[in-house]
Amino acid sequence: MEKEWETLRAWKERMGQELDRVVAFWMEHSHDQEHGGFFTCLGRDGQVYDNLKYVWLQGRQVWMYCRLYRKFQRFRRSELLDSAKAGGEFLLRYARVAPPDKKCAFVLTQSGLPVKVQRTIFSECFYTMAMSGDPNEAVEMMDQIIHWVREDSSGLGRPQLPGAPAAESMAVPMMLLNLVDQLGEADEELAGKYAELGDWCAQRILQHVQRDGQAVLENVSEDGKELSGCLGRHQNPGHALEAGWFLLRHALRKGNPELRAHAIEKFLLLSFHSGWDPEHGGLFYFQDADNLCPTQLEWDMKLWWPHSEAMIAFLMGYSDSGDPALLHLFYQVAEYTFRQFRDPEYGEWFGYLNREGKVALTIKGGPFKGECGTAGPLGLVDSAPPALLTHPPFPPVSRSRFF
Amino acid sequence: MEKEWETLRAWKERMGQELDRVVAFWMEHSHDQEHGGFFTCLGRDGQVYDNLKYVWLQGRQVWMYCRLYRKFQRFRRSELLDSAKAGGEFLLRYARVAPPDKKCAFVLTQSGLPVKVQRTIFSECFYTMAMSGDPNEAVEMMDQIIHWVREDSSGLGRPQLPGAPAAESMAVPMMLLNLVDQLGEADEELAGKYAELGDWCAQRILQHVQRDGQAVLENVSEDGKELSGCLGRHQNPGHALEAGWFLLRHALRKGNPELRAHAIEKFLLLSFHSGWDPEHGGLFYFQDADNLCPTQLEWDMKLWWPHSEAMIAFLMGYSDSGDPALLHLFYQVAEYTFRQFRDPEYGEWFGYLNREGKVALTIKGGPFKGECGTAGPLGLVDSAPPALLTHPPFPPVSRSRFF
Repeated sequence: MEKEWETLRAWKERMGQELDRVVAFWMEHSHDQEHGGFFTCLGRDGQVYDNLKYVWLQGRQVWMYCRLYRKFQRFRRSELLDSAKAGGEFLLRYARVAPPDKKCAFVLTQSGLPVKVQRTIFSECFYTMAMSGDPNEAVEMMDQIIHWVREDSSGLGRPQLPGAPAAESMAVPMMLLNLVDQLGEADEELAGKYAELGDWCAQRILQHVQRDGQAVLENVSEDGKELSGCLGRHQNPGHALEAGWFLLRHALRKGNPELRAHAIEKFLLLSFHSGWDPEHGGLFYFQDADNLCPTQLEWDMKLWWPHSEAMIAFLMGYSDSGDPALLHLFYQVAEYTFRQFRDPEYGEWFGYLNREGKVALTIKGGPFKGECGTAGPLGLVDSAPPALLTHPPFPPVSRSRFF
Repeated sequence: MEKEWETLRAWKERMGQELDRVVAFWMEHSHDQEHGGFFTCLGRDGQVYDNLKYVWLQGRQVWMYCRLYRKFQRFRRSELLDSAKAGGEFLLRYARVAPPDKKCAFVLTQSGLPVKVQRTIFSECFYTMAMSGDPNEAVEMMDQIIHWVREDSSGLGRPQLPGAPAAESMAVPMMLLNLVDQLGEADEELAGKYAELGDWCAQRILQHVQRDGQAVLENVSEDGKELSGCLGRHQNPGHALEAGWFLLRHALRKGNPELRAHAIEKFLLLSFHSGWDPEHGGLFYFQDADNLCPTQLEWDMKLWWPHSEAMIAFLMGYSDSGDPALLHLFYQVAEYTFRQFRDPEYGEWFGYLNREGKVALTIKGGPFKGECGTAGPLGLVDSAPPALLTHPPFPPVSRSRFF
């Protein structure tokens, strides 16, 4: 026990130091003093290699800065708060393509003109996350997203084609469940407003456990059946692990130990054991449930974010259940992650390794990788250990303050 | 000279044998006897891993079968012709999403229902190619494509966004130039009808040579200037080499030796020397003109098709100019290609290698890889050597029969 305690304390310290380095990197290189908002395309040394501003990452950075400011004494700095505000202002002013319509751009020019729009809900979700300090704005967008997902998706602009199956991507209920969690975290009224939605999301996510509980599939039919072909067999271990910790949070809110056990068994352990590369280590990006070759060129690459999700999921699973097997999986992922993704020279993490673990892209930020993707999990883990340092099993209530 | 002659003859033989194996693979595994058309998703051993039918590949396979039937005595077999006809019928019946509107699907179900539509011209271009034996149908679609490209692109369904630069992808004039070539090859009336379009395409392609002639850029502004950011710096060596041989064909039609020399210097030699991986061999998929890291995860992978384009381009360049340096580059690419992409066990080629040359995807067919991508270049090279076996420099007229 003493040794476990020491190991955990060492990881907490390491996570904290790493968080400081990551936040410093983005503070130094990403702030656009001229237009507000954040440069998201940063090279290895932090140099801006494109001044486009990706909206997912604008929203996440605003959210992350606010969270750091609120949760950590050492980040209670006006520079962080002012940058978060400038980022929020930038989004309020420019993210929506044709206000009062709520559809947001996927990427903006430096000065805020829309460059591309995705026909999905994710820009709008990250916009909502950024606005979590401004409940009116957040709720307005959230309600629009719920309308697209549960009632009528035609506003997203996707054509209805007779050969396209009515498929549900796990990413959608997963993302919504995360928003329910975030919006309700410090606001009981919102927690109540979205309680039914949270249950719906959890139920939809659970439909993605298929094949007699032997596989988590990324896409299923709307009534929860396996779809044919590559679409149906597609697996994304990082998403499954991420869905797992969103379900753990939900189980905690609901006081539901069966859901907790199910989330740990299917979304954490099953996904990890089938998604971990036994030869070179690390989590595959994509897999095929029949072990056929995926058609995505990048399927066998190792991306930083599934490893971030796995670290959070295993530490949270351990914290909830006290099962030391989960703690050892946390160590396994954390060791791989710190060894392979961390850039000791310039700070921050590489995002994209080849199967063997060699850096394939040296960028620190890009269309899908931003500050929150690195600082987020470090912040979660850094703020978690006090709970972990008590003796397992931890009473749920002592842990909810930290994650 | 005697030795060169021997080497060339050996390559011709090797190409011919390889062509036979590739055609046999697709004849055996891809024909859908039930609905017509071709299965395009084939695993390493030819097994259908998804019954979706990708329209680019349907069109190309019809075109390829027709061409093999017309150009090679040994492929003048009714099975080939019948399958080409069934594929053509399938496209005529199902490719267009909402006839009489001409927009085609990108992918269809096995029975022909549309699954996805791209907001580009490429499905329609490959449809046109498939119809090259039916001039009326081909011309109708071709004229629609020309309207989208040169007059009004709104029918493609792309939103006009104020932050999106008016960019031209080299793929567009390149593809059109190839269609001009194919439609006019055996039809003088069509050759005349599209002569001005051919000149326009060539001029637009040449605008992609930027930076005082030191780089071929994939995207430029509509008036031929470099664009800012990643979009502007994006390079695709395979496309540049492909554009190169389309320009060589155009130069031959026009009797324009200056264009020939320019195509060889900029699109063949410059693109090859900057696109070839000095460390592991093979052509990179994407590059950044400032040598920054591309943001596409697959940028450093080695794909079969840029190597196919390079083999054709260098052999054609040699055939046109008699410059032995081009022949040696052909050997260099052909040796890499046959060593790395060929599957000696099950036939056909792997399509996707990692940077080091290891097979990353074992599929033989997929959303973008079909029969024509392998058989096409082999057929071109297999039918070329008779011209190459005369003494260089070859009079252009003697060569045009073969390519």
